[in-house]
Amino acid sequence: MAHIDLSTESPGIRGLFEFRPQTGGPLSELAEVLLRGDSSLSRGERELIAAYVSSLNDCDFCTSSHSAFAALQLPDGWTVVDGVLRDPSSAPVDDKLKALLALAAEVQRGGRSVDSGTVASARAAGADDVEIHDTVLIAAAFCMFNRYVDGLGVVGLPDRADYLPMAERIVQAGYLGSR
Amino acid sequence: MAHIDLSTESPGIRGLFEFRPQTGGPLSELAEVLLRGDSSLSRGERELIAAYVSSLNDCDFCTSSHSAFAALQLPDGWTVVDGVLRDPSSAPVDDKLKALLALAAEVQRGGRSVDSGTVASARAAGADDVEIHDTVLIAAAFCMFNRYVDGLGVVGLPDRADYLPMAERIVQAGYLGSR
Repeated sequence: MAHIDLSTESPGIRGLFEFRPQTGGPLSELAEVLLRGDSSLSRGERELIAAYVSSLNDCDFCTSSHSAFAALQLPDGWTVVDGVLRDPSSAPVDDKLKALLALAAEVQRGGRSVDSGTVASARAAGADDVEIHDTVLIAAAFCMFNRYVDGLGVVGLPDRADYLPMAERIVQAGYLGSR
Repeated sequence: MAHIDLSTESPGIRGLFEFRPQTGGPLSELAEVLLRGDSSLSRGERELIAAYVSSLNDCDFCTSSHSAFAALQLPDGWTVVDGVLRDPSSAPVDDKLKALLALAAEVQRGGRSVDSGTVASARAAGADDVEIHDTVLIAAAFCMFNRYVDGLGVVGLPDRADYLPMAERIVQAGYLGSR
């Protein structure tokens, strides 16, 4: 049960956005721009970084939901998602994405944990400044979203399959679609 | 030196917002609503929570800037800010704010670190659901802002006094004032 009375049946972070729409608005806009706006990283790749950071933060709701959002938008779907959640260094993703996932893991530990060598490796693998920026901000943002959900004791859904209708809505209409 | 070429002289997070205005917009709106919008927590109290979480995350720029924003908006200014940064449990703040600072510290460690007893203590000290929600989200948001700034290697200003002009602008015009 959530730590506060949300007075809603909406699962996960959606219930928090309904409880406090003043902050739900900018948070939804941030998710839309960061995960679906113009970028040379695909939507699937960005959702994969979000799912991976959420798994490092042990946030069940965000890991399950963003894994589904990634799987539906990546050519190799769940094979890639499950590989990255198990071990990004041996997962079937290209070297640039591997380097960006390593950068995201450092951000998850803390801003000061980011090593300039990790940034240099990402650049050597082909990442440009905007991709490095966006990876750091996605990882940082999920350190917020994960704490927001779990810090208020919001519960997730029982099964992986339960996230698929939500995933189809996000893929079709985005994070602002239902407002 | 920052890990990426920001091509700006603007200090701290402002340089990141100029580099990527697509995300700078919603991030500024989030700060405005969360730290300055309608709330039964004063602007000074909310900036104090932001400064405290930033100090726990060792983020020099955010600790210094939000300490100045808090000091300028709290009746007892720097005495309260320095007391909280040293030890919130003995700082000259009321029991409700002490309990909310303890909650913020748990969020900083991780969403799953929040204990229902800490939430109950905050409620017993007079905090309502919206204040508990906002405290969790402020703490979570600064786990993002701190990682964003330090994860991209953005440097702060040399002295506490260097933050005062910025603090006066924020107090007067807010986080959207200069757009």
